[in-house]
Amino acid sequence: MLHQRYREVRQYTCQLCRPLKIEDYIPQPVEFASPPKWHLAHTTWFFEQMVLLPYCPDYTLYDRDFNYLFNSYYNNVGDRIVRTHRGSITRPGVEEVYAYRKYVDGAMEQLLSQPLDEDLSALIVLGLHHEQQHQELLITDLKYALGDNPIFPVYREDFNLLARAGRDSGRLPIAEGVYEVGFAEEGFCYDNELGRHKVYLEACTVDKGLVTNGEYLEFMAAGAYEKFDYWLDEGWSWVNRESIRAPLYWHRIDGEWHHYTLAGLQPVDPEGILGHVSFYEAAAYAEWRGRRLPTEFEWEVAAPDMEWGQRWEWTNSAYLPYPRFNKAPGAVGEYNGKFMVNQMVLRGASIATSPGHSRSTYRNFFHPDARWQYTGIRLAQ
Amino acid sequence: MLHQRYREVRQYTCQLCRPLKIEDYIPQPVEFASPPKWHLAHTTWFFEQMVLLPYCPDYTLYDRDFNYLFNSYYNNVGDRIVRTHRGSITRPGVEEVYAYRKYVDGAMEQLLSQPLDEDLSALIVLGLHHEQQHQELLITDLKYALGDNPIFPVYREDFNLLARAGRDSGRLPIAEGVYEVGFAEEGFCYDNELGRHKVYLEACTVDKGLVTNGEYLEFMAAGAYEKFDYWLDEGWSWVNRESIRAPLYWHRIDGEWHHYTLAGLQPVDPEGILGHVSFYEAAAYAEWRGRRLPTEFEWEVAAPDMEWGQRWEWTNSAYLPYPRFNKAPGAVGEYNGKFMVNQMVLRGASIATSPGHSRSTYRNFFHPDARWQYTGIRLAQ
Amino acid sequence: MLHQRYREVRQYTCQLCRPLKIEDYIPQPVEFASPPKWHLAHTTWFFEQMVLLPYCPDYTLYDRDFNYLFNSYYNNVGDRIVRTHRGSITRPGVEEVYAYRKYVDGAMEQLLSQPLDEDLSALIVLGLHHEQQHQELLITDLKYALGDNPIFPVYREDFNLLARAGRDSGRLPIAEGVYEVGFAEEGFCYDNELGRHKVYLEACTVDKGLVTNGEYLEFMAAGAYEKFDYWLDEGWSWVNRESIRAPLYWHRIDGEWHHYTLAGLQPVDPEGILGHVSFYEAAAYAEWRGRRLPTEFEWEVAAPDMEWGQRWEWTNSAYLPYPRFNKAPGAVGEYNGKFMVNQMVLRGASIATSPGHSRSTYRNFFHPDARWQYTGIRLAQ
Amino acid sequence: MLHQRYREVRQYTCQLCRPLKIEDYIPQPVEFASPPKWHLAHTTWFFEQMVLLPYCPDYTLYDRDFNYLFNSYYNNVGDRIVRTHRGSITRPGVEEVYAYRKYVDGAMEQLLSQPLDEDLSALIVLGLHHEQQHQELLITDLKYALGDNPIFPVYREDFNLLARAGRDSGRLPIAEGVYEVGFAEEGFCYDNELGRHKVYLEACTVDKGLVTNGEYLEFMAAGAYEKFDYWLDEGWSWVNRESIRAPLYWHRIDGEWHHYTLAGLQPVDPEGILGHVSFYEAAAYAEWRGRRLPTEFEWEVAAPDMEWGQRWEWTNSAYLPYPRFNKAPGAVGEYNGKFMVNQMVLRGASIATSPGHSRSTYRNFFHPDARWQYTGIRLAQ
Repeated sequence: MLHQRYREVRQYTCQLCRPLKIEDYIPQPVEFASPPKWHLAHTTWFFEQMVLLPYCPDYTLYDRDFNYLFNSYYNNVGDRIVRTHRGSITRPGVEEVYAYRKYVDGAMEQLLSQPLDEDLSALIVLGLHHEQQHQELLITDLKYALGDNPIFPVYREDFNLLARAGRDSGRLPIAEGVYEVGFAEEGFCYDNELGRHKVYLEACTVDKGLVTNGEYLEFMAAGAYEKFDYWLDEGWSWVNRESIRAPLYWHRIDGEWHHYTLAGLQPVDPEGILGHVSFYEAAAYAEWRGRRLPTEFEWEVAAPDMEWGQRWEWTNSAYLPYPRFNKAPGAVGEYNGKFMVNQMVLRGASIATSPGHSRSTYRNFFHPDARWQYTGIRLAQ
Repeated sequence: MLHQRYREVRQYTCQLCRPLKIEDYIPQPVEFASPPKWHLAHTTWFFEQMVLLPYCPDYTLYDRDFNYLFNSYYNNVGDRIVRTHRGSITRPGVEEVYAYRKYVDGAMEQLLSQPLDEDLSALIVLGLHHEQQHQELLITDLKYALGDNPIFPVYREDFNLLARAGRDSGRLPIAEGVYEVGFAEEGFCYDNELGRHKVYLEACTVDKGLVTNGEYLEFMAAGAYEKFDYWLDEGWSWVNRESIRAPLYWHRIDGEWHHYTLAGLQPVDPEGILGHVSFYEAAAYAEWRGRRLPTEFEWEVAAPDMEWGQRWEWTNSAYLPYPRFNKAPGAVGEYNGKFMVNQMVLRGASIATSPGHSRSTYRNFFHPDARWQYTGIRLAQ
Repeated sequence: MLHQRYREVRQYTCQLCRPLKIEDYIPQPVEFASPPKWHLAHTTWFFEQMVLLPYCPDYTLYDRDFNYLFNSYYNNVGDRIVRTHRGSITRPGVEEVYAYRKYVDGAMEQLLSQPLDEDLSALIVLGLHHEQQHQELLITDLKYALGDNPIFPVYREDFNLLARAGRDSGRLPIAEGVYEVGFAEEGFCYDNELGRHKVYLEACTVDKGLVTNGEYLEFMAAGAYEKFDYWLDEGWSWVNRESIRAPLYWHRIDGEWHHYTLAGLQPVDPEGILGHVSFYEAAAYAEWRGRRLPTEFEWEVAAPDMEWGQRWEWTNSAYLPYPRFNKAPGAVGEYNGKFMVNQMVLRGASIATSPGHSRSTYRNFFHPDARWQYTGIRLAQ
Repeated sequence: MLHQRYREVRQYTCQLCRPLKIEDYIPQPVEFASPPKWHLAHTTWFFEQMVLLPYCPDYTLYDRDFNYLFNSYYNNVGDRIVRTHRGSITRPGVEEVYAYRKYVDGAMEQLLSQPLDEDLSALIVLGLHHEQQHQELLITDLKYALGDNPIFPVYREDFNLLARAGRDSGRLPIAEGVYEVGFAEEGFCYDNELGRHKVYLEACTVDKGLVTNGEYLEFMAAGAYEKFDYWLDEGWSWVNRESIRAPLYWHRIDGEWHHYTLAGLQPVDPEGILGHVSFYEAAAYAEWRGRRLPTEFEWEVAAPDMEWGQRWEWTNSAYLPYPRFNKAPGAVGEYNGKFMVNQMVLRGASIATSPGHSRSTYRNFFHPDARWQYTGIRLAQ
């Protein structure tokens, strides 16, 4: 069954790349958005470095240079190319990166056809979840690169991830008291979800639905980006320094708001769910409405009774360790823990999230100015 | 009694400045460290703008330009000089700033000799606490400016705020359960301490004593600043970008560690309490010891049973609003709320904190790279 | 004959691209180094915008967006994509850029098959020289992009432009007196070469040969990059800010100096002509030898009697207008004049210069820190 | 006589400081503008380090730290404080810096009362010219610091250096031919003026008068800062990056142009001579008028027949060595030569230039964006 899952996940990455031209595999338009070619190679590198090399004595490294080229941030695995230079690396070419995938998949298939002990299985499962995270990044990074092009290229005509969604209205009440949060199921989770623990919540309500484009347009009409009162101090600096005037990918054309989607440029649908806003914008919007963002724990408690999964939702919780958080030794321990400062927690999942890669205890995290994910706003009180 | 308190607080600011030369009042060595002259004027400006102008119809503004020159960050009170330019403002001179203080104090004395309603009293009390905060900044900013001078000037021979302190050892146990945190006393507190609320804590221990220079030297001897494993990712970038090799103000001279104090350059005393470290250093130290920093709630619960007050202590809590946090309308509302992102909470008080300006519920906050306050480390587990 | 020349020049650009993979056409590793795709399109855009649109009333624009995408710096021709973003533009793809070239070439061929007046001929000749300049840039920008790749890809095995050259030694004497400089032949030259005029030169000598790698290695062995005395003040800042330790593309591997060439990584040949140094390095080397760089006029006077054409040679002349310099109206006038500040003149031509694109009056110019051209050093006294 | 001159020059520096408050001695508002205290000390340091220490065996250093604090850019004399930190140095205080001056003057007076050999005399004369350069900088740096203050402090009511001047009109013709340029008189000059040599000039005219504020206002009315056509490419970038809209110190108040002078804020006088423009503005103005700036040699040849001395005048010559330029060994050799790249030559002198410190062969030089000197425009054709 793990064998089957390995194949599915690996193939899905390739499937996402099918509409690409060779040219699209290359650019890194900004430090945080890596080229598709890099995602293809890096997810493969993960299996090679973390699974095949330590566990298969007969495995022959595909290419010594690839460790340098396709390591992301694992100091334990050695030096790596400066992050900003990923877009300059044209060789190995796309074809060879696919050959690299094939080579590693071959070795992995052989490994997977044998009985595996629990630790090794867990590591492979981690690698698959790692790949699924990169599938989502592949989509959002690609969108960022194509969206930087003034001719607004179409990735796939039928790939409009921003389409309207049936939406729940009303507010979900949470009663005061002690709740348990954190992962407690069977199966996979990241280390940052562990340490199931009790939290005390005051009575509150969480909105059933997410903020729509139309609702956000009201905020803009009320002078959102011109009035300091709504903004966190660093948010207001960000607005002015970056000349922010609308969510990412929005363009005003002949007096009408449009936004770039992977299906091309489209008019903004007031009924559509708002996306591509920063934490600063989310907090300012809540302030203007006289509401607030939920904490990650309010969100988790409310989750079973509300619709979610279209947007990563900004919470008002900073990304910090749970009680008893313990990072694993070596490279795997660099996965999450070392990022626990200056980032905010997002909960939910987005329409770019791979199938089977969401849980109500999942903790995503980004810096408060990040907008290139499918991020949205849910209000609480 | 408020009248008396007003006099004491205001005089204490001037007393702190007595050892200064006129020259020392001027420089702003770095954006975050304001000149003494500016602190003297800005605290006065606060009473003029927030108290005298709104509440005393007969009050005549001292000088229209001062609002522009001595506003810090209150958007509600109008434009202000760019923060980085405070060190270029030589006029009005120091003498005139003292005249400004005298003028405003005269008007305040008149006001304080009358019966005041509760709101106005509360506002004046806020102004006094505001001034006390700036007294601490005055000391730490001055230290930063003088410490930038290669001849290490002495502020006061008897002003060695880093001296050794009797120290408690051992670990304080906290039992699992629900605790109440936040301000619940009579008297003054900041808005960010309000919203007394329940939190659920797991069983833990908090060290009774703070980390000493000697203990930190062990960390340095173990390669503190050369090994990425101990550091948060952003901390490691900071170490490398800023070439950090020791706490702030430490200098290695002829093979011996010295540090700059307001009483001049002195050898580092291994028994002295460590100071002037960033959150990044605090977190790395804890990691290396196999321990962790307490959360701000663990700290608050443990506070009654431990010694504190020598250092601001980094906690592992991000600076976020308490339940029911509500920022006041207008300028006063800009005091705290708008800074609630990307900063870490510090608890306690430092030896530079003014008398009567500490509480176990007090929430100080700084960016994780800040070191110019008297910041220290307490461990938990 | 112009017709024939048009075909040759245009085909040569495509020929230079033949060894490229599609991937190589995309990246812009640094602001000043444009992608091959961009060079292919921009040189075509020049003919479309400067020749076909103004002079062929029947000409139909290939694509309206291309003007925005492939304008370089001509403010007169309208807005353009930010220079740093050229590497993010994956669409139109490489194939379509070749189609664009074919389309424009078709229209040009039609135009060229008719009798042309002198102005139009001159404009087309300018376009061909413009394309030849971009041919050289295409090679040097490509080298920069591939040289940024830690696996040092080979462009063409037989394309080692840094090979040893038969070299003249000795010094060429120039007698004191008045000389004429500037273009005075039949045929094409740039506007910055015009204004043939007299200059008064003192007696001097100019070396017949260029500095070799071996000679520069002596400088390095003498502490070139560690001693401030040899350097211009801004040069010394540059060395320290950029941590410069050797010419561009040089790597010390197992104690031996190698350099990246378009034929791959190779040991540095002491007899080879030095390349890829900045003006700062050239000036420091001359200072160390107790010599100096020639002025552009000394160079021009000496040119007929010395070998040149392998390196662009830094002179000690700033790039400034000749007497009677007159920039043409409109876009063509933006070609040269507006760059006449803060750049140094290079004379000669390099082994990457296209056939037929060199003259002894040619004035190339770069900022003093530029190293990605095949730049070298000739000494004078 | 040298003795008398020493006294006069040294006293003039102190005289310039007489209107200052202690506060004014401290700030460094921007990297290039040093505090008055630093100028006072650095000019003294020059005599101590270059004259007293090498030539007076009995001389006792005033304070070892001063070498570190008051060295400007002489690498030969050892380490020095980072240039940007000059404004943080409050100790030694102003009084002690005057004591330092007195101490060094005492030793110098003793030296000067003895017969001196030629070399030593020449060195002292160099020190006096060095001090005169700093006198001018002291005025212009002070203006920059005070001009940064929104209350526009007055230095001296009678110190309006921008007042109207009797002005010559008409154009001065220069005949084609060979001219000699460079210093050839008795007495002092800098090393960069030596190497008297012949240049060949084409026939041209140089304006007798300098550009007035009124003439420049015409340029502004014609869209000076909005039209790229007039500007050098780097000038246009500078205009946009720095949001330049007028000469330095100009403020539009209630629809009228005012400018800050050392006598306070004043309306711009259309008949006054324009000041405080960059080379970029000078070049753009000339371009708009269909004229050009003179070269430094045209200027020198025309000088005897025109009025000059109110502004430093931008020429279109880059700052480069004359033939036979030879920098002296050691620290004195760092005076001029190492700055000969990326700067433009200014000729003349300004109303802030000290008495006796101007010559028609004097070569001043600044980066093309510098505006804080009293810089003006003279046109040629």
